[in-house]
Amino acid sequence: MRDGLTFVLDEENGLSLQQQIREHLIRAVASGTLKPGSRAPSSRTLAKRIGVARNTVILAYQQLVADGYLTGKERSGLYVCEDLAEVASRHLRKADESEPRSAATWRAQMKRRSRVDWSRRIPPDWSLYPYPFLEGCLDAELSSVAEWRDATRAALGAREFGKWSMNFSESDDEKLVEEIRTKILPRRGVQAAADEILITEGWKQALDLVTQLFVDSGSRVAIEDPGLPELRELLRLQGADTWPQPIDGEGIVVDNALNGRSVVFVTPTRQAPTGTHMSRARRKALLRKVEAEDALVVEIDFVTSGFGEKRLPALKAADAHERVVYISDLCEVFGPGLRLGFVVAPAAVVREMRKVRSLLAGPAPRAAQRIGALLMALGHYDAASNRVRRAIGGRLTALRDALNYHLPHLVLIDPQLSGASIWVTGPPGLDARLLASEAAARGLLIEPATRFYAREGEGVSAFRMGVSGVPVERIRPGVAVLAQVMRDLGDPALDRLDAKRPSWLSGAEIEALMCGATLLCRTVYGDPYSVEVRPDGKLIGKAGYAHEDCDEGEWWVEDDRWCRRWNVWSYGETARYFTVVEGDQIKWYKDDLVLFNRGVLVPAAPDLAEASAA
Amino acid sequence: MRDGLTFVLDEENGLSLQQQIREHLIRAVASGTLKPGSRAPSSRTLAKRIGVARNTVILAYQQLVADGYLTGKERSGLYVCEDLAEVASRHLRKADESEPRSAATWRAQMKRRSRVDWSRRIPPDWSLYPYPFLEGCLDAELSSVAEWRDATRAALGAREFGKWSMNFSESDDEKLVEEIRTKILPRRGVQAAADEILITEGWKQALDLVTQLFVDSGSRVAIEDPGLPELRELLRLQGADTWPQPIDGEGIVVDNALNGRSVVFVTPTRQAPTGTHMSRARRKALLRKVEAEDALVVEIDFVTSGFGEKRLPALKAADAHERVVYISDLCEVFGPGLRLGFVVAPAAVVREMRKVRSLLAGPAPRAAQRIGALLMALGHYDAASNRVRRAIGGRLTALRDALNYHLPHLVLIDPQLSGASIWVTGPPGLDARLLASEAAARGLLIEPATRFYAREGEGVSAFRMGVSGVPVERIRPGVAVLAQVMRDLGDPALDRLDAKRPSWLSGAEIEALMCGATLLCRTVYGDPYSVEVRPDGKLIGKAGYAHEDCDEGEWWVEDDRWCRRWNVWSYGETARYFTVVEGDQIKWYKDDLVLFNRGVLVPAAPDLAEASAA
Repeated sequence: MRDGLTFVLDEENGLSLQQQIREHLIRAVASGTLKPGSRAPSSRTLAKRIGVARNTVILAYQQLVADGYLTGKERSGLYVCEDLAEVASRHLRKADESEPRSAATWRAQMKRRSRVDWSRRIPPDWSLYPYPFLEGCLDAELSSVAEWRDATRAALGAREFGKWSMNFSESDDEKLVEEIRTKILPRRGVQAAADEILITEGWKQALDLVTQLFVDSGSRVAIEDPGLPELRELLRLQGADTWPQPIDGEGIVVDNALNGRSVVFVTPTRQAPTGTHMSRARRKALLRKVEAEDALVVEIDFVTSGFGEKRLPALKAADAHERVVYISDLCEVFGPGLRLGFVVAPAAVVREMRKVRSLLAGPAPRAAQRIGALLMALGHYDAASNRVRRAIGGRLTALRDALNYHLPHLVLIDPQLSGASIWVTGPPGLDARLLASEAAARGLLIEPATRFYAREGEGVSAFRMGVSGVPVERIRPGVAVLAQVMRDLGDPALDRLDAKRPSWLSGAEIEALMCGATLLCRTVYGDPYSVEVRPDGKLIGKAGYAHEDCDEGEWWVEDDRWCRRWNVWSYGETARYFTVVEGDQIKWYKDDLVLFNRGVLVPAAPDLAEASAA
Repeated sequence: MRDGLTFVLDEENGLSLQQQIREHLIRAVASGTLKPGSRAPSSRTLAKRIGVARNTVILAYQQLVADGYLTGKERSGLYVCEDLAEVASRHLRKADESEPRSAATWRAQMKRRSRVDWSRRIPPDWSLYPYPFLEGCLDAELSSVAEWRDATRAALGAREFGKWSMNFSESDDEKLVEEIRTKILPRRGVQAAADEILITEGWKQALDLVTQLFVDSGSRVAIEDPGLPELRELLRLQGADTWPQPIDGEGIVVDNALNGRSVVFVTPTRQAPTGTHMSRARRKALLRKVEAEDALVVEIDFVTSGFGEKRLPALKAADAHERVVYISDLCEVFGPGLRLGFVVAPAAVVREMRKVRSLLAGPAPRAAQRIGALLMALGHYDAASNRVRRAIGGRLTALRDALNYHLPHLVLIDPQLSGASIWVTGPPGLDARLLASEAAARGLLIEPATRFYAREGEGVSAFRMGVSGVPVERIRPGVAVLAQVMRDLGDPALDRLDAKRPSWLSGAEIEALMCGATLLCRTVYGDPYSVEVRPDGKLIGKAGYAHEDCDEGEWWVEDDRWCRRWNVWSYGETARYFTVVEGDQIKWYKDDLVLFNRGVLVPAAPDLAEASAA
């Protein structure tokens, strides 16, 4: 009586009960609820369940047998015929001329609609792409299922189970709060009491609770620009008056545009999405400003900002006047499917957040909280953190090197690698959305920067490349594909040689020019490097402001091309370029005749040039 | 460099760097971050981490040794002294005259504050209470950890793991959606396509998403009264104009008060909190009304409504004009710490909800979704459902019987048992909040009904008793305690005999009166029963409208008390009462002289009375 297919019959809808039963059953077949080959409910059971005479059901079934939907097996009852779904669907397509409310009608009734769809940022099939350079995706190398399994087993064990499984109250897992309080927060320079910590289901829920409390329609707030699109949209849905404040090399700009703003949302440890680190001076300036404006700062400190290189302490660590509400998370990499975050704020604020949370969601599931706590207590969290940090660090370096190799004069990146992604500024004229779209067709995913900016038309030529979803050995090939796409999309006005009217130097001219010369170039991340081109065919390369990175190599000329090979740099691969000199500019073109790289040519001292010409 | 205690020094704050280091370390000791007996960071490491000269740290450490906070162990470094926390706390109490922002200042800045604190509904120590009659608590008998463990193991196994662990997109677990679509929904009479289902983290999140889409400031909506307090508060925070529509014996009243309401929130399967079932006629009336008003219905169908007895199909099953947004959940009992819910709505609505969800929360954690799906696919969900349903059914019956036994004329309940709680109406003049408070002091938890009503002063004498947290053998003792509390709190104006002026019948009078008489009484749930009092000392009892429940027993007189014992009824226990007759009313009093029960006395036919007197 309790289980199994049931439906409601409507005496007033015009069809006989038999016909309605038939329709419902056909619908059940079409939708997969009653699977082909499965047994239909017995007429007695179904009749009792839907409240009609058994004969009515029997008659309906007889009709369905006649129509070919059901078939009888001797002494066994009626079964749904195989190969039926098609028949059923055709039937339903005719029947569905009854009007469901159209999508437009529904949308008209909605009070709030997201203008953007961040739910599609990561496609479900992302892992099928060869080169998914998206933040937030993790490939198998980085996920930590063994640790999670261990912590889960511990959570279910006799010793632990009773401690959390009976907790139906709204309080958070004590062990998790204690681990965060005594291990995680001190590393960020933050001291907090247990009642100043609230566990959330990730940073998004934390932001939701904070905005519920402190932001309403007309509230004047400020966010970073470029910044977090989800936050911007969340504030828009709340009806807030949101000012997008620019970022510079030290983080969010602190000036009078922040006056009158009651809440400022920042990501100081590692700016999302550009990766900028907020300097100490800027942090102080921001805290002074909010003190003067009697405002709050909401700090979001993503755990991913701890990947790559060393993190600065949290802004909250310098928060002497208690104006910072601190949000952070425990990333999914530390336990697949574990999504936990937390807020650190004065106890009065945490109390209010707990109340709002009880309306909107309730506490994070108990098992997940305890598993998170055990991951930390058992040491898995730190072990996984370190492992991931090393892996990500390697991948960031690989990405930087690949960008430098394949796109040397086309892109700019920050020299300091951090987090799990690189913010790439493309050449003026590049539309990164077009690039992303074309790249996706070739198996490569990147994130155009426009989505991070408040205003239309900003950040058009920039994009973000995350490394957490791409194993290190695929990074360089991926960037090669990206470079190809960029070139294919390239502006015809870009520097391109004309094959019909060759303007490049001949082999002999190259040799004469290069012997004893010095080349001055820059990497994509702004570091200068010099190349001594020796008459004996050797290259001496020195990079970095302190020449901390050096290499040696060879050069020669072949078929009117300048050829060079480093021992280590550029993967030790041979490159061949057409060469053009304009004043002190030297320009190199690959076989596709598009400008590939350029530098400054410092010719050999006259005596050397003569000596080699001799 | 990456791990370990760190803090931020402030050149401008007036204290020397040494003093600041000292303060931070004392704070770390006081808060438990640096535990007594643990090793202090080496001066070299700490200096590098916080960015000062090593000597500065050494000097700070020397001072801390002198103050008794640190102690040196030979060749091993400095250690935090034991028995220190007290010293540190005292120190901090002096230091904290610097003003943190007061709680009042913070609250003044909040835009929205919950007027009620539902986060405290279930106390964290609820399981320590002997009689926690609260909805939402589950005792060990009902929780299903073995099943959950099994499903978790399967989710982590080679065959399953890859299918969900790489899903960082916003799509929901396909397997879970399919299980819900083909197993859960058909039992509720609901047919849906996969894109008409959205997985949420419980029903609260589902409600949050629905209200985000369809309700804003000034929206005119209607809810049931009494109803869900969390929903009422959520709507208030949204600024909605919420009308509390009354309930009667068939569910929410459908009348012109619903005109102009754009959304109506209902719990038709089993009204929360009263347990009323919405009749078929009322469902049709509601659907006609919303069609006429071009409104929506949000239906919340709690899984707990499936406990106890049979459930009616969902309202959505009768929703021919597509006006119902259906919310349900997969209860926590089916996997400790698994909190999942779902929405069934037209695909256009689900798409918008997914977008909003991506801003506020993201999808439910992957592991939890897959574990939920496996619980269903492996058959555990159904097995656990049935087991819980039987257990809860037994407990509800036990509660009904206990209420009938201990509080026969004081309370009223619905005869139909369902869900996992009983809605109890106490006598007029009872303040259930007082009752709850006093009962809690005696180890018994109940939920006063006032919290479910929109208006002050309503539902004062009613309360809800949940059975999911109380094993069946504790139900009767619990109700005994409740009865005692109720009597202790009782109105002195209540019917009470005066021990000094006895007005009760003597033993002989009782015997003369009762022989051959018939008693007519009612249970707390409104069923009539009759008792034939035979001259030979036998009792024949017949209860229920069809006399479906009968029993036999004995009666006798002892010490001026009417004594009776049933074979089965009243737990087969002997009861002794003082008896008073007023007209055709017979009243019984226990030894505390307070009225315990009453009935109608139909005296013996005259010839019988004479025969027994002879």
